[in-house]
Amino acid sequence: MPEKFYSKDNIRFLLHEVFPIAELCKRERFKEHSVESLDMIIEAADSMSVNHLRPILTEMDNKPPYLENGKVKVHPKMGGLMKTFGEDGWISMAAPYEYGGQQVPFTVFQATGFMMGAANYSTIAYPFLTTGAAHLIESFATKELQQIYIPKMFSGEWQGTMALTEPGAGSSLTDIVSTAKPTDKGYYLVKGQKIFISCGDHDACDNFVHLMLARIEGAPAGTKGISLFIVPQQRPDKNGNLTFNDVNTAGIFHKMGYHGAPIAHLMMGEANDCHAWLVGEPHKGLSYMFQMMNEARVGVGCNAVSIASAAYYNSLEYANVRTQGRKITEKDPLKPQIPIIEHADVKRMLLFQKAIVEGSLSLVFEATTCLDNVATLTGEEKETNFLILELLTPIVKSYPAEMSILSTSTALQCFGGYGYTKEYMAELFFRETRIHTLHEGTTAIHGMDLLGRKVMMQNGKATILLMTRIMEDIEAAQKYEGLKAYAGALAEKIMKLQEVTMHLVSVAQSEGPEVYLSDATLYLELFSILAIGWQWIKQGIKVEELKEAGTKAYSAEFLQSKLYALQYFFEYEMPKTEALIIRLKSNNHVTVIAKAEEIL
Amino acid sequence: MPEKFYSKDNIRFLLHEVFPIAELCKRERFKEHSVESLDMIIEAADSMSVNHLRPILTEMDNKPPYLENGKVKVHPKMGGLMKTFGEDGWISMAAPYEYGGQQVPFTVFQATGFMMGAANYSTIAYPFLTTGAAHLIESFATKELQQIYIPKMFSGEWQGTMALTEPGAGSSLTDIVSTAKPTDKGYYLVKGQKIFISCGDHDACDNFVHLMLARIEGAPAGTKGISLFIVPQQRPDKNGNLTFNDVNTAGIFHKMGYHGAPIAHLMMGEANDCHAWLVGEPHKGLSYMFQMMNEARVGVGCNAVSIASAAYYNSLEYANVRTQGRKITEKDPLKPQIPIIEHADVKRMLLFQKAIVEGSLSLVFEATTCLDNVATLTGEEKETNFLILELLTPIVKSYPAEMSILSTSTALQCFGGYGYTKEYMAELFFRETRIHTLHEGTTAIHGMDLLGRKVMMQNGKATILLMTRIMEDIEAAQKYEGLKAYAGALAEKIMKLQEVTMHLVSVAQSEGPEVYLSDATLYLELFSILAIGWQWIKQGIKVEELKEAGTKAYSAEFLQSKLYALQYFFEYEMPKTEALIIRLKSNNHVTVIAKAEEIL
Repeated sequence: MPEKFYSKDNIRFLLHEVFPIAELCKRERFKEHSVESLDMIIEAADSMSVNHLRPILTEMDNKPPYLENGKVKVHPKMGGLMKTFGEDGWISMAAPYEYGGQQVPFTVFQATGFMMGAANYSTIAYPFLTTGAAHLIESFATKELQQIYIPKMFSGEWQGTMALTEPGAGSSLTDIVSTAKPTDKGYYLVKGQKIFISCGDHDACDNFVHLMLARIEGAPAGTKGISLFIVPQQRPDKNGNLTFNDVNTAGIFHKMGYHGAPIAHLMMGEANDCHAWLVGEPHKGLSYMFQMMNEARVGVGCNAVSIASAAYYNSLEYANVRTQGRKITEKDPLKPQIPIIEHADVKRMLLFQKAIVEGSLSLVFEATTCLDNVATLTGEEKETNFLILELLTPIVKSYPAEMSILSTSTALQCFGGYGYTKEYMAELFFRETRIHTLHEGTTAIHGMDLLGRKVMMQNGKATILLMTRIMEDIEAAQKYEGLKAYAGALAEKIMKLQEVTMHLVSVAQSEGPEVYLSDATLYLELFSILAIGWQWIKQGIKVEELKEAGTKAYSAEFLQSKLYALQYFFEYEMPKTEALIIRLKSNNHVTVIAKAEEIL
Repeated sequence: MPEKFYSKDNIRFLLHEVFPIAELCKRERFKEHSVESLDMIIEAADSMSVNHLRPILTEMDNKPPYLENGKVKVHPKMGGLMKTFGEDGWISMAAPYEYGGQQVPFTVFQATGFMMGAANYSTIAYPFLTTGAAHLIESFATKELQQIYIPKMFSGEWQGTMALTEPGAGSSLTDIVSTAKPTDKGYYLVKGQKIFISCGDHDACDNFVHLMLARIEGAPAGTKGISLFIVPQQRPDKNGNLTFNDVNTAGIFHKMGYHGAPIAHLMMGEANDCHAWLVGEPHKGLSYMFQMMNEARVGVGCNAVSIASAAYYNSLEYANVRTQGRKITEKDPLKPQIPIIEHADVKRMLLFQKAIVEGSLSLVFEATTCLDNVATLTGEEKETNFLILELLTPIVKSYPAEMSILSTSTALQCFGGYGYTKEYMAELFFRETRIHTLHEGTTAIHGMDLLGRKVMMQNGKATILLMTRIMEDIEAAQKYEGLKAYAGALAEKIMKLQEVTMHLVSVAQSEGPEVYLSDATLYLELFSILAIGWQWIKQGIKVEELKEAGTKAYSAEFLQSKLYALQYFFEYEMPKTEALIIRLKSNNHVTVIAKAEEIL
């Protein structure tokens, strides 16, 4: 039996039934595509995952990147992979035709990322960082810059990166100190250091295109003085020849996992010869970044689900073959041992993972559908999708990231003592996924984004739009006996969430913003559980519809399995909201009141 | 500032105020000791931890053990350390004088283990496994065997191990297949393989004394046919000369963390020349093991707290020095950044860790106090302590083990992106602690032990005794304004726990044992949260008493910090019981009903 790290049936179920790509194919932007052609892309991603990415996962883990003579060395297969990612269109797939892309729906693009990430997370950092960086250039840079950089990036020859973080500016991007000095030759001279730059240097590409934040000399303090630049490691002249651009690799960070991709510490302009080209207007760098961040953040959430999916199928396979113990009612020690999946607690651990993985992946596609809608709809419909996406972004980034830690930990637990050893891959997935609550904004940052900005923006319009959508699905679910109670429970929780929000708003008024936001992380968790509950209701409706229609497209076990995972989510995860609500309504503000010196 | 990995003030607070060792010193067994002499042992453990164990932690992590020519090689300092552990009495401390021990209270012995484990968990596996193995020999083996083995074990020359697990018998010990064939020379010939044997072979000791479970030929099937043997790697003759005893090291397991100690795969009797000496009576091996398991399991819980403590102080120190961002109310980007401990969410993450670490450590000492009481009291008092210990054992083993995963993960989160890198030790602690929910019984096993055996034994006598103790403390807490509400909340939860238990008993009657035990893991978590809440109430009472008495022994910040952690626990952790109660009272039994083939 070949190793499984995602369910192709589930991807099909989500993309054909819950978020039908057939609908997207009707839009002008996607009219060259059909369900069949998009399915072929999914098949190609599967082949890439199985044949090229997964086979080198363990090797990559065992041999992390290293720095040799100022150059980062990565797995020897990575160079060939980057060519494939480029030539076969994985990097450019979602981009417009005019830039060499194929205008594939973002939802399908993300699905390929999910599959390849489940196979080998590190390998996809390279192409998809390039996609993100190229997208910034597409959206905000001059035609001239676009022509220089985008083709080389889409071909996989040049690596794109996001160069934001500095030693003193991580969560607080406002504190960036890298400088850019204008010259009269059309470029700027930048100086500064950037840390944690994923794929910031390696030997699998010929050049590196850093999308770098810096302050133009004399710029205003704070976020309003940050500009965005293209800073190549090697600068191309008019003939395409490359000259070293004074971008040095000071070091790489040794990490707990995610060993296949290097994270570099870069020094720009040590010799005062680092040329940089402004993207868009001065001082607007952060706003450009923010416009791209929704995609990047959905991507991080998706990566976290990928790894949890890999861990889930890994543990599911083990649970079906590993025998240990007998049924509680079986007292005869001479009877053979049973597969551990027969034990209720092991089923609990498996259903937990399935509920997290498939609930979260559904939410990822909810978000990418919004992205596709924003790109293809107009007027109020576009606005609605944009606002809902804004609201969902902190959730779709953070919930999978946080839960993937628990989900991979649970997978590891299914292996018993073996889970802690390198005999199996459970420990690898557990190490690998731990990065996702940290990069692209920590969970705390997203909690504050949700409660401090998104919930209240435009007088709560986004929240109202989202709740309306959820209530529609709740209503649709009411007619199915197996969903009724859970749909009702979700409706009740939605009311309670609104009460909590009102309570917090009153706290904001009486106690100020610090108290208001002090438990934003918990508020994010509460909101997230409801969002995933909603996704399970949506999936449940489709399962019931398919059953009613007597579908042959999915096995009875597949459909039943979905309903069990739905039940699991509502029986075991949804009750956690009660604990969060109790806390969020409490008037004790110990985390605000306690002074630093009183935490010992 | 020297690195801190535990709070000596907290150890003093627990051992002087909450679980007063002065009381223990009044007992006959401990009469040679005084608070001062026991404090000196704690000081010595601190010195050992700081000067000898912590300095090699990172080195050990970077260079895991390896197998060379059939022999396991460990860190070169380990040999000297084992001599020190032996010569300075760390191995034998708690043993009776007649065996060369010092009759130190188990509570103090465990405190030294806590400290040394926080410094470097792997290093203490060697001595404390030896202690546990020697204790089995003390309790059940013949005088002759005791004289041969115990002195060499206590001196640190010979390593003791627990050789239980086999490839097909992990959680299900009843399935052990190793055999023992009687001879007419007083020994048995054993044959079999044992896996996951911590410190099962290495070059820091001269010999290995495996306490091995095997079946005597013709023994009954199941747990009633398992016997316990001493199986040395080298067998000593009458003159103390060692002969190879046909115990081969087939391999070692490469692990995610806990790199300082090897876990071996051993082959006994491949050449039919593995001599083994029966401990106690035939077929009673498992019952002997169980009699020792309380100590071992308290030890595992304590080790999990150790690592969480190390991670907590590591992150606390970082939070005090790392600057990032400004107060939410501070809009001026030119104002300097503030230490991250000033942010409410960081304080939340620190108080979470503190509440877990200090609440769990308190529960560890609650359990060791029971052990000391069992060893020194008689009649009903002894019985009461024994029963409460039996009940607490699955909790004190599992709650710290489970929560240490979350606590070290939270420590890592405090470091932001740096937490994922090897620049700091957060990732090491996160990897290190993950073993504790697996060894000495997985969490599921302990859940079933609690709900399936302990809660109901002797018609629930242990539960009643424990609840009576808790209610006494709740009553004592009622007179303090700052504790009243929390004491009341705990009392209410105790009632709810009883309701849940009654509900489950009725489920057992109507639906049978499989449904009854299907959520035993959740029941364990529920019970555990109440147990830790109790420990916080106990600590709160002592804080209030000390404040009333105008203590100079503890700083005002120390006492305030305790109260904040107590508040945190009741505000953020205690509400989680509501979610568990909802689930435990549900009539949906999805984890029982779902068939293996319906989990896809």
